[in-house]
Amino acid sequence: MVFVRVGHDIAGAGGGRLTEEQDIVYLAMPDRFTPPRAIPLPEAPAFRETVPMGPERLFRFSAATWNAHRIHYDLDYAQRVEKYPALIVHGPMQAMLLMEAAMRHAGGVPARFRFRGVHPYVPRCRSVADGRGDSRWYDPVQRCAGRPSGDAGGNRVGGMSGLLHGMRVVEGSAFVAIPLAGMTLAQIGAEVIRVDRPGGGLDAARWPVTAAGQSLFWAGMNKGKKSIAIDLTTERGQELMAELVTAPGEEAGLYLTNLPIRGMAYASLAARRPDLVMVTLAGDRHGGPQVDYTVNPAVGFPVATGAEGSDAPTAHVLPAWDCIAGNLAATALLAAERRRLRTGAGDHVKLALKDVAAAMLGHLGIIGEVAVNGVDRPKYGNALYGAYGQDFACADGGRIMVIGLTSRQWRVLLKATETEAAIAALEARIGESLKPEAARFRHRAAITELLAPWFAARSAAEAGAALQAAGATWGPFRSFAQALAEDPDLSPDNPMFRMLDQPGIGAYPVPASPLACAGAGRPDPRPAPLLGQHSEEILADVLRLPAGAIGALFDDGVVAGR
Amino acid sequence: MVFVRVGHDIAGAGGGRLTEEQDIVYLAMPDRFTPPRAIPLPEAPAFRETVPMGPERLFRFSAATWNAHRIHYDLDYAQRVEKYPALIVHGPMQAMLLMEAAMRHAGGVPARFRFRGVHPYVPRCRSVADGRGDSRWYDPVQRCAGRPSGDAGGNRVGGMSGLLHGMRVVEGSAFVAIPLAGMTLAQIGAEVIRVDRPGGGLDAARWPVTAAGQSLFWAGMNKGKKSIAIDLTTERGQELMAELVTAPGEEAGLYLTNLPIRGMAYASLAARRPDLVMVTLAGDRHGGPQVDYTVNPAVGFPVATGAEGSDAPTAHVLPAWDCIAGNLAATALLAAERRRLRTGAGDHVKLALKDVAAAMLGHLGIIGEVAVNGVDRPKYGNALYGAYGQDFACADGGRIMVIGLTSRQWRVLLKATETEAAIAALEARIGESLKPEAARFRHRAAITELLAPWFAARSAAEAGAALQAAGATWGPFRSFAQALAEDPDLSPDNPMFRMLDQPGIGAYPVPASPLACAGAGRPDPRPAPLLGQHSEEILADVLRLPAGAIGALFDDGVVAGR
Repeated sequence: MVFVRVGHDIAGAGGGRLTEEQDIVYLAMPDRFTPPRAIPLPEAPAFRETVPMGPERLFRFSAATWNAHRIHYDLDYAQRVEKYPALIVHGPMQAMLLMEAAMRHAGGVPARFRFRGVHPYVPRCRSVADGRGDSRWYDPVQRCAGRPSGDAGGNRVGGMSGLLHGMRVVEGSAFVAIPLAGMTLAQIGAEVIRVDRPGGGLDAARWPVTAAGQSLFWAGMNKGKKSIAIDLTTERGQELMAELVTAPGEEAGLYLTNLPIRGMAYASLAARRPDLVMVTLAGDRHGGPQVDYTVNPAVGFPVATGAEGSDAPTAHVLPAWDCIAGNLAATALLAAERRRLRTGAGDHVKLALKDVAAAMLGHLGIIGEVAVNGVDRPKYGNALYGAYGQDFACADGGRIMVIGLTSRQWRVLLKATETEAAIAALEARIGESLKPEAARFRHRAAITELLAPWFAARSAAEAGAALQAAGATWGPFRSFAQALAEDPDLSPDNPMFRMLDQPGIGAYPVPASPLACAGAGRPDPRPAPLLGQHSEEILADVLRLPAGAIGALFDDGVVAGR
Repeated sequence: MVFVRVGHDIAGAGGGRLTEEQDIVYLAMPDRFTPPRAIPLPEAPAFRETVPMGPERLFRFSAATWNAHRIHYDLDYAQRVEKYPALIVHGPMQAMLLMEAAMRHAGGVPARFRFRGVHPYVPRCRSVADGRGDSRWYDPVQRCAGRPSGDAGGNRVGGMSGLLHGMRVVEGSAFVAIPLAGMTLAQIGAEVIRVDRPGGGLDAARWPVTAAGQSLFWAGMNKGKKSIAIDLTTERGQELMAELVTAPGEEAGLYLTNLPIRGMAYASLAARRPDLVMVTLAGDRHGGPQVDYTVNPAVGFPVATGAEGSDAPTAHVLPAWDCIAGNLAATALLAAERRRLRTGAGDHVKLALKDVAAAMLGHLGIIGEVAVNGVDRPKYGNALYGAYGQDFACADGGRIMVIGLTSRQWRVLLKATETEAAIAALEARIGESLKPEAARFRHRAAITELLAPWFAARSAAEAGAALQAAGATWGPFRSFAQALAEDPDLSPDNPMFRMLDQPGIGAYPVPASPLACAGAGRPDPRPAPLLGQHSEEILADVLRLPAGAIGALFDDGVVAGR
C-alpha cells in the first residue's frame, strides 16, 4: 500500500485561487474483489438526487481528463485484471457530482470542500447522492451492486474457490434432480441458496435415514448449500422468495426449481428482473407428475434388463434419469447464464424428466433400432450389447465383469485368461474372425464357454489381480458395503473424499465434486446446512434487510432459523 | 440501410487545403454477427507492419476524436447490443494507419488517398498492414479474430440459434460420455468439431447398427456436430489438431476428450494457448481403463438390483454412468469457460468415470447408509426404497408401476385404486399410521396385497386410464418397441422430436435437446455428419489455410474428406 499526496495550487491572472490537496492510495492488485462494508445512510435525507451512470458518462469523463485507466471503460479488464465487479466511477467525478449537489442545495459556491472516497464505487446503473440539511453529504451508496458471494461461512478449500466462485443460485426444490443440480454447482464454487418451508420440504425425511431419523439422502444432496426456511403459504414469504430469486447483481438472478411455488412463475419473476435465468424441471412435457421410477418403465429399460429369457421386468436402483436430468439442468443454467452475459437477455429453460429419458433413447440409437431395424431388444443378462462383455463366477463365488469392446481390450482379455489358442481354434471352427466386435457378440456364448474355466479355477481376488496386471478392462461385483470396505476409490484414500462431520449425523466419507481442476482446484466437500441455518445471514447480506425487519420476520413466523 | 455523404473542405489562413469526401453506411442493428468474407491478400507483400491494437489505443482515439460510440471501448456493449465479436477499430484510425504506412514506404506526402472500409475491423490483438511496392495498400486482415460459428451448413431452427450460439468446441472422443457431452452442447447451439481418424474412431461400428452396418449409435451421439478426419499418427496431423484445439478467439480454445491422443496433452496444448479450457475424462483416477459396465458392478448397484431374495447380480442396460459423466463434462466445460471469461485463466478439468459413480454413491446417501447405519442394502425388486412404490400385474398381463412417495401421491393412489377403507383397516390392525413414508416402506407387502386385486381386475389400459384421471404418479412397463409404438412423448407429436433423414440410414424420429428455452429456443435436431464431411471447411474457415495447402493435406493423406 502506497500513499501519495498531490498538491495543486491554481491562481489566475485576474485573481481567484484554488488549493487542492489530494491523497491517493495505491493498493496491491487483488486476487478477488472484497466487497466494502456498507456505510449507513442518514435516516431521513433532506434530498436525494439520481444521476444516470452509464458507460458513456464514464468514457466522457475519462476522455475529458485524458485518463486511459481501463477500469473506467473496459469492463472485461476491470473484472479480469483488477477484479472489480463492474466499471468504476472516477473518484474526481464523484467529488464533482457531490460538490455540485451541495452547491445546488446549500446555495452559492463552497468556500471549502472535503471528500473522501472510502471504497471503489461500482454503481452499475445509477448513482444516488443523499444529503442532509446540515450541509453534510454522504458517499453514494451501491444501490444496484450485488454482493459477491461465497466468502461467508462454511469450510473453504486451501486457496481454491472453485470454477463458479462468485455465482449465486437460488434453488426451490425437492428430491433428486434439482437438488443434485444445485449441489453440483455448489461443489464447484457457486453460492447455492436452497429455500425450504419451516419444518423441511417434501424430501426432508427421504431414505436412507439414520436411526434418529436424519436423512442421509438430504445430507448428500445439499452439501455446501445455504439454507433459508420461509413460510411460502404467506404473501410476505412469497415476496421474500421472489426478492431473493430476483436480487440484483450480475452474479445473481439464477433460479433452479422443480416445484410449483406460488408467486414463483417465470412471468411474475421476470417482471421484477427481466434478465432472470430460470430452469424448471417437470415430470413430463404435459406437466404430469412423473418421477424416475415411472419414467424408466415407460421408456422400456426394465423390460430389457435382467436374465436372458426371463420375462420379469427389472427396475434400476440408481435413479439414473434424475441424475442425468440434474446434471443437464446444471448445464442449462450455465449455458443460459453465458448467453445472458453476452446478450443481456434472461431465459426460461424448461425440461421434463420424461423428455430427458426419451431423448437419451434416441441418442443411444435405440429409437433407430426400433424404427429402422424393426428390432425390439430382448434381455441379454449382463452381456455387453453388440460386442463382448460378460460376467463370470469365480472359484470362491465371487463374480467378475470383463470387457472386450475395443480390439485392444479383446486382445488383452484373451492374453490374461490364456485363451488365445482356444479362441483361434473357435475362429477356425466357425470359419469367421472374431476381430469385428459384432462377431464377438453373435458368438458370445461360445466365447464365454472358453473363458469360464479360467475364472472357475481362481478366486475372484486371483482373477482380478491377473486381469489388473494384464491391463484388462474388468470390475468385480460387490455389494455397497463390500465396495466401501474394499475399494480405496470409495474412501479418503481418494482425494475426492473427506471424512466430514455432518451435524446431526456424525462423521463419514463425503465426496467433493468429481471435477478436479488444475487451476481452480477442487473445493473440499462441505456439510449440508441445517434447515434455516443461513436464514438470518441471507436476509441481511443478500436482501440487505435491517436488523429490525429481520427480527419481525422471525417473530411473525414468516422465516425460521435453525 | 442509409448512405450519408459528408464533405470536409479544410483550408488554413497560410494556405494549404484538404478536401475529404466520406461516405458513411448505416446498417440496421443485426440479430447476430455475420462474419465478413475474407479478402485475399497480395501474394507477396513488399512490406508488413504490425501495430499493437489494444483497448487503450481504441480509447485514446475515441477520446481524441470525442467519439463516444461504445463499440470502440465497451466490449460488453459491442457484443451484447451491436453483436460484434470484439471491439471495433475506428475506420478513420485504419485510414490514418494505412496512410502513415504508405507515407513511410512510398516517401513523401500523398497527393491523394482513397480508403474503403468494407467490413468492421475486429483485430483483437494486433493490426497488420500489408502493402505492395506499386503504392497500393490493402485492407488489414483479421489475423487474430476467430470466425463466429454455427452459421455454415446443417439445418437451422426458425430464428433460434440456441443458448450456446457462438461457442466452438473441439472433441477428440469415442463411445458415450464425451460424445454425449459434445452433442449436448451442439444441440443447444455450440459449433462442435469432432476429430476422428480417417476410417473412423473406436466407436464407428458401435451397436446398434443397421443391416448395412451403419452405426445408429454413432448417428445418435454425434448429431449436429462437424466432422474432420485427420491421420493422427502423422506429425502434420497432430500439428493440425493442436492448431484446431488452440485456435484463437474468445469463442474457441475449448477441448473435450477421453482419448490419449499423441501431442494433445494439456501441457503442450497450453504452451500454444495458455487460456485453453480442456476437460479430460478417464476410466478411473489412476488412469485405468474402466468403462460403464465395469464401474457399475464395482460400486454395488447390480448386487442391489433384481428380484427380492435373488442372488444374481443384475447389470443395467442404460449406460447410466456414461450418461451422467457426459452431462457433468458439459457442465465442467461451461463452468471453466465462465471462469476464463472472468479471470482470463484457462484450466484443465479432469474427471474419472469411477469417481462420478463413487461421488453419486455419496450424494444419494448410500455411503452414509453403510458407514453410519451399518446397512448393506439388499435387493428390493421393483419396490421404491424408503417409501411406497411398486409394480403390479394387470388382467391382460401388462404391468404398471405406481408411486406413493409424497403424501399427495399416496392419497391419490389410494383414491384411484379404491383402497382407502382397506388401508384404514390395515392401519387399525397394525396400530400404526401409514402417513410417514418410512411406515409405508416397512408395511409395503401388506399394502401391495391390498392394492393388487384392483390391478388384477383391470387391463393395463383400464388401470392406466383410471390412474391418469386421478392424477396419480404411475407408468406402464413397456418394451422399447412398445414405447415407440404407444407413447406420443416418443414421437414427433412431442415437439422435441423431428423425423430426420440421416444420410446412410434413412428417416426416423430424432430428438433435439430436452432443453426448451423461451428466449433462445430449441434448435431443431440436425443429422450426424458423415466422417470427414467438414474437413475442408474447417481447414479453410477455422485454420484459414489457403486452398493449395488444403489440397496438399488431402493429397498426402493427412486429412480425409467424406
